[in-house]
Amino acid sequence: MDKKSLRFRKGLDEMPSYDGVERDYRIKVNANESTMNLPPLVEERVMNRLYFVAFNRYPNEEYYSLVEQIAGNFSVRDEQIILGNGSSEIIEKVFHTFGGEGNKVVFPVPSFSMYKIYAKAAESQAVPFELDKKFDVDVEKFIRTVKESQATLAVICNPNNPTGNALTVDALEKIASSIDCAFLIDEAYVEFYGHSAFKLVAKYPNVIVARTFSKAYGMAGARVGYAIANADVARMVGKSFMPYHMNTLSLAAADIVYQMRDEFTPRIQMTVAERKRMIERLKKIPALEVFPSQTNFILIRHEKAEALKNYLESVDIGVRYFSPTAQGLKNCLRISIGVRTENDEVFKVISDWLNQS
Amino acid sequence: MDKKSLRFRKGLDEMPSYDGVERDYRIKVNANESTMNLPPLVEERVMNRLYFVAFNRYPNEEYYSLVEQIAGNFSVRDEQIILGNGSSEIIEKVFHTFGGEGNKVVFPVPSFSMYKIYAKAAESQAVPFELDKKFDVDVEKFIRTVKESQATLAVICNPNNPTGNALTVDALEKIASSIDCAFLIDEAYVEFYGHSAFKLVAKYPNVIVARTFSKAYGMAGARVGYAIANADVARMVGKSFMPYHMNTLSLAAADIVYQMRDEFTPRIQMTVAERKRMIERLKKIPALEVFPSQTNFILIRHEKAEALKNYLESVDIGVRYFSPTAQGLKNCLRISIGVRTENDEVFKVISDWLNQS
Repeated sequence: MDKKSLRFRKGLDEMPSYDGVERDYRIKVNANESTMNLPPLVEERVMNRLYFVAFNRYPNEEYYSLVEQIAGNFSVRDEQIILGNGSSEIIEKVFHTFGGEGNKVVFPVPSFSMYKIYAKAAESQAVPFELDKKFDVDVEKFIRTVKESQATLAVICNPNNPTGNALTVDALEKIASSIDCAFLIDEAYVEFYGHSAFKLVAKYPNVIVARTFSKAYGMAGARVGYAIANADVARMVGKSFMPYHMNTLSLAAADIVYQMRDEFTPRIQMTVAERKRMIERLKKIPALEVFPSQTNFILIRHEKAEALKNYLESVDIGVRYFSPTAQGLKNCLRISIGVRTENDEVFKVISDWLNQS
Repeated sequence: MDKKSLRFRKGLDEMPSYDGVERDYRIKVNANESTMNLPPLVEERVMNRLYFVAFNRYPNEEYYSLVEQIAGNFSVRDEQIILGNGSSEIIEKVFHTFGGEGNKVVFPVPSFSMYKIYAKAAESQAVPFELDKKFDVDVEKFIRTVKESQATLAVICNPNNPTGNALTVDALEKIASSIDCAFLIDEAYVEFYGHSAFKLVAKYPNVIVARTFSKAYGMAGARVGYAIANADVARMVGKSFMPYHMNTLSLAAADIVYQMRDEFTPRIQMTVAERKRMIERLKKIPALEVFPSQTNFILIRHEKAEALKNYLESVDIGVRYFSPTAQGLKNCLRISIGVRTENDEVFKVISDWLNQS
């Protein structure tokens, strides 16, 4: 048997890979993670809970316990909650649910770079929707694009990653009420914005709101996300998941974190305050374009962005640089908000280097 | 917008669901789990390790640390190791990798009931291969079926679930060398058998050996599995996974468990000894058919299987009963091996009930 005779899935070899290469930095502000581990009180209770985990048993009640808690918080039925390995997995499965040959999915560009990969993985046709120069969504044009393409799925990331800006909930409602396909609202960063669209689910059965524990709740390592959807839609998305896709450790940890989510409020407020402070300071640097943000990161543009990124890396600060081929993001860097001392150092390194060069 | 206008993926609504309904039992021997949590020494080190987990960071080094350790143990290259959320996820992705419209996958029946679901999820054509009356694989016939169907993927579960019997590694090599498509050997229970086919990977680039932490290592809740494959095959299977599909907690826990896997040897030996003891005792019950087993479970057949299952449940003992439509498994029950006291009670309840009824 010659290995060349193996017949792989059609198109699989051309599957693009996610371009987020990870390494450690002294100051790591390249992946929109929280730079702080769990609050001590939360960590203590998480560890106590993990101590009682039945490692040997398949996950079961831990799944439903978290579902019930989230459903209760949003006053929806348990059947309306979907859990996944990060909201990433939920988004992947939503793309799968409404995907397949000939089905089209409309998503903004620039936005989360995985959307185009999820579209390809779902064997759907991607219909990228270009944001305007200020990275805003022209709502009427978006609705027209969805309708004219006869898409099965439309996606908005709100606030948008990596640009930082957000649509109002009214604008999202305008979209939800005007299109007749599934409408996924990816709210990975919504806690830093404060205006969730989750209430639209009750009114518009096509709306699916995806949230995550990875950002505001500092749980990126645990891979837990959830979505709120119409029960029939949730049931169909559920069919795209394999049994036991979630693990007990992450479920138990998320259950505690969600119970104690008030402990994260001061951190979220700190991040928002720091974001504002950083934006004000960065704006004063000549030739640096600073985009408004409702998230835990800031997008900046400078003609020497790549050299600046290299310099930051040389002093062990990791920021996110976008490949020159990333549509609309030429010369852009994305910097996550850390704690005050980290932000101060990042700012100083950037401003010193730009002043000197 | 009417929810009836939502257009779901073609065929998704007909996706069969896994029929493993979970609930708790006083003696839970229905899911081939270990009935014991981690050995105390292992648990202590796992908890110490979890204490140092960076919940806030996306998984990274934890993934590669486990990969390196497993690769080292099997003396293969890191690039040959695939990790997944249980071997289930790896199997799903292998089906995806070699699947797609028109592609065929040959798998035994009766065997792990998910194979037919994975085939459907991969949009492949399932070619079920019937085991003989004793649940053995007719190797020549299997090879012929794979060749004649021009399958892209052939699957053997070894030892086989839920029947318990196993092929020799020689028989597996005969298959590997005779077919020219991918050949997945699902070794979820191999630690209870003792004869892994992993060495075939070096010789036959079509062989993929999948293993799990869920059974012998008592980690079903953590959802960690791995596979050993040719590096090119592993790269292609890797393309079917989404980034950050594994979580740090499970990876860190599995890393410790794998380091300390010698601690599990006495348990595996105990399970094998208990399996033999139980088989001998069960064989003495008239009208009860007992199948040979190389696993941590025993398959039995009795014309009153369903009533027996109901009675066992009424005394809070959970065993696995197969729906009358499950091909070849009519009147069969599968009983996982627990600790000695559990096995003794299960035996007593079964034999008393069968003697009375």
